[in-house]
Amino acid sequence: MSDSASRRTFIAATGMAAAHVWVPGTARGYSPAEMRAMEETIGVSKWELDTPALCVDLDALESNITTMQARLTAKGLGARPHAKTHKSADIARKQLAAGALGICTSKVSEAEALMAAGIDRICMTTTNPSASKIRRAMALRAKSAQFIQAVDEEKNARDLSDAAKAAGLTADVVIDVAVGTRSGIPAGDGAIALAELVSRLPNLRLRGMLSYDGGAQHLTGFAARRATALANLEGNVRVFEALKKKGLPTEIFSGGGTGTYNIQHDVPGFTDVQVGSYLFMDMQYLAIGNAAGGPVYDDFARSLTVLATVLNNRFPGRLTTDAGAKALTLNVPRPGVVGEPGMDYNAGSDEFGVITFSEARKSYAIGDKLELVVPHCDPVVNLYDQMYGIRKDRVEVVWPITARGKSQ
Amino acid sequence: MSDSASRRTFIAATGMAAAHVWVPGTARGYSPAEMRAMEETIGVSKWELDTPALCVDLDALESNITTMQARLTAKGLGARPHAKTHKSADIARKQLAAGALGICTSKVSEAEALMAAGIDRICMTTTNPSASKIRRAMALRAKSAQFIQAVDEEKNARDLSDAAKAAGLTADVVIDVAVGTRSGIPAGDGAIALAELVSRLPNLRLRGMLSYDGGAQHLTGFAARRATALANLEGNVRVFEALKKKGLPTEIFSGGGTGTYNIQHDVPGFTDVQVGSYLFMDMQYLAIGNAAGGPVYDDFARSLTVLATVLNNRFPGRLTTDAGAKALTLNVPRPGVVGEPGMDYNAGSDEFGVITFSEARKSYAIGDKLELVVPHCDPVVNLYDQMYGIRKDRVEVVWPITARGKSQ
Repeated sequence: MSDSASRRTFIAATGMAAAHVWVPGTARGYSPAEMRAMEETIGVSKWELDTPALCVDLDALESNITTMQARLTAKGLGARPHAKTHKSADIARKQLAAGALGICTSKVSEAEALMAAGIDRICMTTTNPSASKIRRAMALRAKSAQFIQAVDEEKNARDLSDAAKAAGLTADVVIDVAVGTRSGIPAGDGAIALAELVSRLPNLRLRGMLSYDGGAQHLTGFAARRATALANLEGNVRVFEALKKKGLPTEIFSGGGTGTYNIQHDVPGFTDVQVGSYLFMDMQYLAIGNAAGGPVYDDFARSLTVLATVLNNRFPGRLTTDAGAKALTLNVPRPGVVGEPGMDYNAGSDEFGVITFSEARKSYAIGDKLELVVPHCDPVVNLYDQMYGIRKDRVEVVWPITARGKSQ
Repeated sequence: MSDSASRRTFIAATGMAAAHVWVPGTARGYSPAEMRAMEETIGVSKWELDTPALCVDLDALESNITTMQARLTAKGLGARPHAKTHKSADIARKQLAAGALGICTSKVSEAEALMAAGIDRICMTTTNPSASKIRRAMALRAKSAQFIQAVDEEKNARDLSDAAKAAGLTADVVIDVAVGTRSGIPAGDGAIALAELVSRLPNLRLRGMLSYDGGAQHLTGFAARRATALANLEGNVRVFEALKKKGLPTEIFSGGGTGTYNIQHDVPGFTDVQVGSYLFMDMQYLAIGNAAGGPVYDDFARSLTVLATVLNNRFPGRLTTDAGAKALTLNVPRPGVVGEPGMDYNAGSDEFGVITFSEARKSYAIGDKLELVVPHCDPVVNLYDQMYGIRKDRVEVVWPITARGKSQ
């Protein structure tokens, strides 16, 4: 079968798949009773919420959004926050209102959910290698001229162009150039050739390149993090400069995250940072250290907590709570108990948290509540249907997690 | 404040909380388009599903249900399957139709979701220590005479009786007697006194006791598992026999799980087993060994898989897929790649799986699909909105995960 016959088959399959695959929409189907109950939660003390409850302190969240935008702007960089962290249309709206260039999503179903909720400036950072997902991505591009998608392979670029043609549009794409070995095309001549191909294909419009360094974000110690992050991107910078020299579009050179937001401006040509966790902070990011050499990464305020209830206090040096792996994940460092530095929180049971301690600041009765800092914010947020927005310990707003579970 | 004044305050709080706390209902709000799309998925090859996709082989699932019920019946035991594993009203219905005594749930929100979907024979195995959750549990008891709830503390028993009285009913309860140190009242005189108290309280009806041994389920090697499981329950058996001697209700003596289903009949007085994972099997249970001394626990067929797509094959000895921690959790043993024993699957990235191998049975292109056995079924099922029921590799049914995310 020739290449172009194979592509025709591909387009036919794209059309077919449209009828086949169940694509659940945004979870917006609240009943009148549920909406009434949401209304009635407003103003309640957070300590009255049924647990496990995912809470975000709004003062801290808003301050983090403002701080990040101001610091990136001061260094001549844009913010393109990654929605894989918050999966919330409400938070995305706040980020855009603060000046973000757009929002990133990891999966096409995540982009669909956010776009259905009104977020249309989206850059999808993961490639779509199947006919069905390409069709879904093109449907998003048809809805929004501000939808950009990633490509990292010649065949995939041709498939995208064919699908864009079939959909009667020109699709905006960025090439994903690998940092490390996880995703993207290796930073070399192949990447440059891919960019050239994309710029030639009739139904694609090249916008630039992505280079996300997932591995550098959590390196402990600022100096080591900076040195590694910059070294990791050297090949990518050479690709970027080659594209520029060839006169190819280089409007976007995007990557980085919360761990390297204050490093990326030293990467020549870099345009914007895909920050996510800065909104919430978590045990992982708190541990990486700040630019002044301090052990705690305190550039942003800790805003996200899970509230849990003590179920058992009968065994010495132990407490059992109602928040286990289904509420907190198994990430490390383990959850932190606010105000109890001597407590070790093990979320290894699906339904229960088990705390062990040799010393506690107070004694706990069954029914008492605890506030926990989560190990790693992204997968924890993904476990909840809603997030309670808290101001001065009272519920101000209840946000649905718009793209919860949208991993497709 | 006297005890009874404190209880009056408690009941008042129960009433108040009813108006305050947002209780999202079962995720049943499918739009006409979504329902049409579900219909249209029927009959499709599972390999056409967008990934990550949670799939259950129906032949294997049905055979597991029949096998478990038959084996427990042959030993004079009942099945009281735990819905924390499947969170699915459809699967619960199959278990009840096969002869299960009832269904267990871990949290009150889980019980609410299943009861709203028509499952009314429910035993809630975790205690409810807050006013709001007690109110929710009593509302379930008001809806179904077959709702049973756990209690493990004198104060909580009095609160339950008061709340039952306020709701105008008599609530069925079981005392939860600890095995280990995670949950429940220690197996001793206190447990007997609690049972006596429950039997005296005006609005409670004692039904018996729970004794779930979470720690024994995954012990490797049948002989060691059997010895530990029986030793761990010795104190609980003494409590059970004391209740019997005192003429207290002992209709229920429930616990155990998939790892000890063929051991529990040797516990004197034991009535039923809270099996869950036998439906699906997973890497954790496959590794514990069978009663014949074999290293693989093969009493039940492996029915649950996650389908993933290869996103990157550019780096030697590595593949990247679209199924990471948000699709598979971080549990160990790591996910198994069906047909590729030499592949090590690391789901440590939120969005990506990274496979490393020195030898593979075939070479993989970008877009190829892989079938994965999940590390631990319960928390993986909880990540998905729906499960595809597969027969002979085609989608026969799409089941919503009725109680997904119901950790409250």
